[in-house]
Amino acid sequence: MSQNSPFAFTDAFRDGLPVPIPRFTGLPKYNFVYGHNDPSEVPAETLAQIASRVIARDGALLGKYNLGHGPQGHEGLRDFVADKVARTRGIAATRDDVAITSGSLQGMDLVNQLLLAPGDTVILESLTYGGAIAKARARGAHVVGAPLDGGGLDMAALRGILEDLRQQGVRPKYIYTIPTVQNPTGSILSLERRRELIALSREFAVPIFEDECYADVRWAAGDAPPALYSLAPAQVIHIGSFSKSLAPALRVGYVIADWSVLSQLLACKGDGGTGALEQMVVAEYFSQSFDDHLARLTPALRGKLDTLVEALEKEFGTDVEIFMPEGGIFLWVKLPDEVDVRSFAAAALEQGVAFNPGPDWACDPEEARSHMRLCFALPSKQQIREGIAELARICHAHTGRPRRSANVARG
Amino acid sequence: MSQNSPFAFTDAFRDGLPVPIPRFTGLPKYNFVYGHNDPSEVPAETLAQIASRVIARDGALLGKYNLGHGPQGHEGLRDFVADKVARTRGIAATRDDVAITSGSLQGMDLVNQLLLAPGDTVILESLTYGGAIAKARARGAHVVGAPLDGGGLDMAALRGILEDLRQQGVRPKYIYTIPTVQNPTGSILSLERRRELIALSREFAVPIFEDECYADVRWAAGDAPPALYSLAPAQVIHIGSFSKSLAPALRVGYVIADWSVLSQLLACKGDGGTGALEQMVVAEYFSQSFDDHLARLTPALRGKLDTLVEALEKEFGTDVEIFMPEGGIFLWVKLPDEVDVRSFAAAALEQGVAFNPGPDWACDPEEARSHMRLCFALPSKQQIREGIAELARICHAHTGRPRRSANVARG
Repeated sequence: MSQNSPFAFTDAFRDGLPVPIPRFTGLPKYNFVYGHNDPSEVPAETLAQIASRVIARDGALLGKYNLGHGPQGHEGLRDFVADKVARTRGIAATRDDVAITSGSLQGMDLVNQLLLAPGDTVILESLTYGGAIAKARARGAHVVGAPLDGGGLDMAALRGILEDLRQQGVRPKYIYTIPTVQNPTGSILSLERRRELIALSREFAVPIFEDECYADVRWAAGDAPPALYSLAPAQVIHIGSFSKSLAPALRVGYVIADWSVLSQLLACKGDGGTGALEQMVVAEYFSQSFDDHLARLTPALRGKLDTLVEALEKEFGTDVEIFMPEGGIFLWVKLPDEVDVRSFAAAALEQGVAFNPGPDWACDPEEARSHMRLCFALPSKQQIREGIAELARICHAHTGRPRRSANVARG
Repeated sequence: MSQNSPFAFTDAFRDGLPVPIPRFTGLPKYNFVYGHNDPSEVPAETLAQIASRVIARDGALLGKYNLGHGPQGHEGLRDFVADKVARTRGIAATRDDVAITSGSLQGMDLVNQLLLAPGDTVILESLTYGGAIAKARARGAHVVGAPLDGGGLDMAALRGILEDLRQQGVRPKYIYTIPTVQNPTGSILSLERRRELIALSREFAVPIFEDECYADVRWAAGDAPPALYSLAPAQVIHIGSFSKSLAPALRVGYVIADWSVLSQLLACKGDGGTGALEQMVVAEYFSQSFDDHLARLTPALRGKLDTLVEALEKEFGTDVEIFMPEGGIFLWVKLPDEVDVRSFAAAALEQGVAFNPGPDWACDPEEARSHMRLCFALPSKQQIREGIAELARICHAHTGRPRRSANVARG
């Protein structure tokens, strides 16, 4: 050890940390990962005017933690959230039922912090947001995956899991679900199944953790059944976000829950408040323009989805199975069973094509070994076409599939 | 249990949670708590123009997580931080050594997450930021308080603590210190003591966790010794903030550390990034106006401090001992030994006067039973005078002290 390094910090690290990140070297050329949004749909000029107006008007309040609005966050934004979820998700709430968080991810962290101790059990959808799996496991929880079909959670299977756990004396801490534009499968849970889920939660006394971060971005607005929270507020913790409806670099999300939950959750939120400037701007913009904004955004995203589907059909032909989403910013696809997408994910990234391997979005990685999640919001249509062509080329080089692309047999 | 509440969420809560928060009912009339800043010193008009300019220019980037700048945060802000700490704190760093966090509190959370497991030991200054004590204890760490004198950490006492712990086979995970405008005592550690501290860290192989969140707000700019990080980068994790130098409702702070630390710390930062709009605005404003801003802010704060000291001397006379700070936004004071400030803190709050009781800022609460921390940045000078008069009245009603206020004997 050199004179300048009398000890290694790493010696002091606790056990069980995640893998260190590599140095950031820029986004990949063809970027189908994560939840980036469409930069051309960010209303930069309007947001610039809005920001100028709200800061000139309320900027002095920035001198106070939380603008002096208290730990639940910006009052106007909470009013907007309450109004929005009433109009679009059937939720009867006021600003008092809403806590603003730094993205829905902080909401998820806080719910986990509230409920999970090492050894606890949680039920997640068998295919779900990778971060939800990782965050629960990082707190030492045992993750049980509940099967999905084309309509979302399979209620008979969920009942079986709950009964098995009860027989083992295990009461899960929550059932985590993304009922409205499920991640990654894109389905919307029917009202009938929602009612069944509420009944199971009641029967087994297991809270529901409802993540609706994609619910505002649907192809046919208004056609989704009401949020689980609206059906049984005493059984559900509800989180949402503006990352998908506006922009993910703005870190603004929310939790809606009973005060017995919020009061304890906010006691754990030792962050000095969520960024106020972002709350001010989102509140001002969306209080006026939420419906208009979504009316522009969703067709633009839908158009990119169509381009992606066309490109996949052209480049992968019958070797790709497509799960058409009801909204959102990603597409879940499956390659033939013999293809393990992990066999070419790293090579693809090296060659500038990034996708989310199915195993990262599955409680049991093997279940999704042939799947990919493709986010279509960030790349242009041209980049989508080029990127999928590249992906097909790379996939073929490593797996022999797809055998044909655009009527041309490959090597 | 009613039909609507088939179970109580609280049954599912894990053990060891903090006390739930009460409903927020507004800020107290005379507010001497926390780290609020002076609202009249927030340059609202300028920030409005800045925000408008940066969003019009770079707003589309908000469509990408972290603006596409990667997990360390906004490149321009990291450049500014590196430049600022080079100029003002003697730190040789580039943007690669800086990670932007959601306030320095997130930095603190991440350092704790990185290093602390239940049963670990940490050394804190015996009087220190209450959040630092609470956060370490929340992770199950054993907190050892190291004595301070008027010049900050007492190095002989610290050596004794380190030797005792070594004899017990305990290697502390860090020595947490606020060397430059100590919280709550307001002292600045001398260069000689900084060198001794570095030597102790080296000898006992214990990292230093340096919190400089107040370092930019000093009465005599330039006269503070260089940061501990600058003296021994391989031994120190350094955090800082813009809450005190600009506005606390903006959640922007930073960590400077070796890549072995940052790469692991950022792997734990599962928040989707720090709010980008706040980073954009702080970067743009402070890249141009940091020195000018501080040149306006610090005399304004100093003026309020003088008002506070005058008011205390008038209302408490010889019953108050004042620890004049070298900068910052708070004053540490002591009442006579027989006064326990906890005996009237709640009553004062009910009557509209909020202060931080000394015991909340002490590893051993009893050590600071007669102390108060008074933040002077938020209230106007008029409010300071009125609030301290009220405080003296309430204190006297509960403790019989102060006996005289403004030459008038009290009841």
